[in-house]
Amino acid sequence: MSKGVEWAAHAAVMMIALPEGRGLKAEALARYHDVPTAYMAKQLQALSKAGIAQSSRGAHGGYRLAKPATGISLWDITAAIEGHAPAFRCTEIRQNGPCGLKRKDCRNPCQIASAFAVAERAFRDSLKTVTLVDLAAQVLQNARPEQLSDVGNWLESETMPLSDTS
Amino acid sequence: MSKGVEWAAHAAVMMIALPEGRGLKAEALARYHDVPTAYMAKQLQALSKAGIAQSSRGAHGGYRLAKPATGISLWDITAAIEGHAPAFRCTEIRQNGPCGLKRKDCRNPCQIASAFAVAERAFRDSLKTVTLVDLAAQVLQNARPEQLSDVGNWLESETMPLSDTS
Repeated sequence: MSKGVEWAAHAAVMMIALPEGRGLKAEALARYHDVPTAYMAKQLQALSKAGIAQSSRGAHGGYRLAKPATGISLWDITAAIEGHAPAFRCTEIRQNGPCGLKRKDCRNPCQIASAFAVAERAFRDSLKTVTLVDLAAQVLQNARPEQLSDVGNWLESETMPLSDTS
Repeated sequence: MSKGVEWAAHAAVMMIALPEGRGLKAEALARYHDVPTAYMAKQLQALSKAGIAQSSRGAHGGYRLAKPATGISLWDITAAIEGHAPAFRCTEIRQNGPCGLKRKDCRNPCQIASAFAVAERAFRDSLKTVTLVDLAAQVLQNARPEQLSDVGNWLESETMPLSDTS
């Protein structure tokens, strides 16, 4: 799994705290997490494409969440960055070689592929139960008051009004 | 996930059918599955290193399972090929940037990393419930008699006695 999932998840949790109608530039979100701007921008674009974030164009372009955080799960973030393709890709090698099965006898998935599909569903279902709100709540529960104050001050100085979002 | 997991899983299921003391060359297992010998050999070496397969050296070198198939799960095969490292790697970016947490406040894992750890455990636990015996039983249930006969004949002509296994 790429680092982008970690970055996108942290950026998405951060965006919960944005006041109505305001956003953060990709550059600010990158600086907040001390990661390269270009790569953070790439993750934010992927979140936008997946309908998780929305952006405004132009010199004052910025990002905010596109929908309520209760409706955004860690699986949504993961799929936005890594795609929906299964990790195990069955190439039907049971049809190969001197004793290969005939295609017409392979209407059901291969047992090995089926077992991986079950395991991947368990992974996905687990991530689907965790929303951005759950993650933010846990961050708040563990934060010291002075950390919250630092984050609040930083947000106040960095957020900007978003217009013409897409 | 690499194709090697698929190949190793199919090869391991095939090796269940080997008579006591007999094995198959990497070249034969590659030919049976119509995949490149060098890459199949690499997967078999990984299975050996993980204690799942055993090999004999020399011109008559070959592979067989190193332990009862009831004790070999699809997770064992996956870990032998892909390693045990988690798919999600936390780089502790919560400690980064202008509002980064202090290291001493990060004794507990990051909430995002924890959620991925739970999901990966669900994936792993699911694969652990599926043994080579389960997979082989499903193959047998779905096979036509003539397919079993083909496989039996192929095994009879390709297996060889193994000695000096390691």
